Amino acid sequence: MTGMTIAPPPTGTARERIVSRTELTPVDLLARAAYMYPEKVALVHGDRRFTYADVGERAWRLANALRAAGLEKGDRVATLLPNCPAMLEAHFGVPAAGGILATVNTRLSSGEIEYILRHSGARHLLLDAELADLVEPIDLSGIHVLVVDEIDAADDYEEFLAYASPEQPVSWLEDEEETISINYTSGPTEPPSGVQYTDRGAYLNALNEAVVADLSQESVFLWLQPMFHCNGWCFTWAVTAVAGRHVTIRKVEPDVIWDVVDAEGVTHFNGAPTVQLMIINSLKAHRVEHPVTVTVAAAPPSPTLFARMDELNFRVVHVYGLTETYGPTTVSPEQDDWRELSDE
Amino acid sequence: MTGMTIAPPPTGTARERIVSRTELTPVDLLARAAYMYPEKVALVHGDRRFTYADVGERAWRLANALRAAGLEKGDRVATLLPNCPAMLEAHFGVPAAGGILATVNTRLSSGEIEYILRHSGARHLLLDAELADLVEPIDLSGIHVLVVDEIDAADDYEEFLAYASPEQPVSWLEDEEETISINYTSGPTEPPSGVQYTDRGAYLNALNEAVVADLSQESVFLWLQPMFHCNGWCFTWAVTAVAGRHVTIRKVEPDVIWDVVDAEGVTHFNGAPTVQLMIINSLKAHRVEHPVTVTVAAAPPSPTLFARMDELNFRVVHVYGLTETYGPTTVSPEQDDWRELSDE
Repeated sequence: MTGMTIAPPPTGTARERIVSRTELTPVDLLARAAYMYPEKVALVHGDRRFTYADVGERAWRLANALRAAGLEKGDRVATLLPNCPAMLEAHFGVPAAGGILATVNTRLSSGEIEYILRHSGARHLLLDAELADLVEPIDLSGIHVLVVDEIDAADDYEEFLAYASPEQPVSWLEDEEETISINYTSGPTEPPSGVQYTDRGAYLNALNEAVVADLSQESVFLWLQPMFHCNGWCFTWAVTAVAGRHVTIRKVEPDVIWDVVDAEGVTHFNGAPTVQLMIINSLKAHRVEHPVTVTVAAAPPSPTLFARMDELNFRVVHVYGLTETYGPTTVSPEQDDWRELSDE
Repeated sequence: MTGMTIAPPPTGTARERIVSRTELTPVDLLARAAYMYPEKVALVHGDRRFTYADVGERAWRLANALRAAGLEKGDRVATLLPNCPAMLEAHFGVPAAGGILATVNTRLSSGEIEYILRHSGARHLLLDAELADLVEPIDLSGIHVLVVDEIDAADDYEEFLAYASPEQPVSWLEDEEETISINYTSGPTEPPSGVQYTDRGAYLNALNEAVVADLSQESVFLWLQPMFHCNGWCFTWAVTAVAGRHVTIRKVEPDVIWDVVDAEGVTHFNGAPTVQLMIINSLKAHRVEHPVTVTVAAAPPSPTLFARMDELNFRVVHVYGLTETYGPTTVSPEQDDWRELSDE
């Protein structure tokens, strides 16, 4: 072996030496789930059930239809939607088209909604039929409005999808640091700030949430927090990353929640302590057979809440985050010796 | 709201607009685990038990000691080690120092080992005392050799760590596309090729494996596949990412495996079908109380193997990969309707 050439250290910058690299984007998480689990139920919304093949096709149809309607790279697509199939589909279809998703809080006033539509420069708007009154006072000229009406199966949205190709469109993403969505802050600051999420950040936080909340392909995730808030803390993408099941309900009401928890075998849900209180105080509250992982954000849960959650077989994960941090970013996971501590 | 300025599309390239970005590296996975779970048992090796605080301190000591011994950025640090604490620590300490890890297969001949040491340009070598005979014929001048002797608590390695700082050193990583490790191919091709893994690729595949194998902070991972092979399919980093427990054994023997599975409550292990066969054919084989996730790579498992694994409460995940793909890269996860199929 004498005389063998010793390899020189690698030359050039790291980036110049890259022979294979894929830009990170949550769009690929749906493409993977639809490819690997086409028959698996991806989404339940009332009586409607969609497989991952369905959700994939519908998201790609939305993307192709948006392009056909003139969407150019970086155009903002706003939503004024509750948690529903169109809202989940927009989280994949809009970036797949090359657009930027701007989800508007449905609890805002017309004036605030107008501010966000103008400030984000929205070119398209997905509008829930029941929320039409909110935009009635707003001049929407220059914005392409698509009404999503759950009662009318022949609404604008379904018609829009029907004529488009179900094939995933060729990606226009050149750099994972491009913007995937704009999330407007709420709370004490005025006016709202538009926080830009990147494809890279969204992808990484989706995997982070999947690990922290212990999501897997067996997970059944009940949507209680709104998807319009920090893109549902990136769980829109996280649950899809593991090919878990999304369950959406239009209105967060305790009895509906308990019915769905039992009927669908829910394993995970998230929400603020106020929502959790509503759930544990329901007359339908009962201990669930398999543990349910409950991620509680914002204010710290009280000892009483913890104790009651424990009785119901709910495993609490406390997190904290900001709109600016893609939702939850710090977590207080259960430690081994906590089981020995008192509730206080 | 009339006259409001419409926001222009973002200007400049995506990269120019980045205000906050962290380069991905598996080193941060240990830093996080040591910070969040300092008291949690991270590693069990025979009678030795290390918490995450311990493993963090030991890895940073290794990094600081390597720098003190003259390591410059990009210097290759080779290992000729079985699965053991020093081997896991090297997976974090070497990149934390700014070095590149070159793990050498301990089953190779002296000539092959010499080839890899020369080809990788190794400057440092972590050498297991029992494997010293393998390098005896090799001219090691110019290579700083550190002997790891599990029997002698005052070996080179422990002494090397003892005098170094336990603080995490300042990172020299400038770009996540830099090389973290070199893995040499084995098999039919000659001579072996050195495959460069990047910090980015290693980090992403670690999270991928954590999701696919359903790892969590409750996981107890038994090391059967060698860490020198594709950095243990990136499970060195994946198990640490979730702050799970690593269990290492020097030699893969069925009776030892069953003792450890029972004593430590193992939840996950990986290996080729030949290893699995050895386990299920052991006289100590028995059905485990909690399901164990077994990731089987390389050749497809036989129907007989699947049936027997099922009896033992082992849940099989079949994967396939290459040295060139950071280990397993395609996976065949269990589908909902498979439970209804016959074993054949």
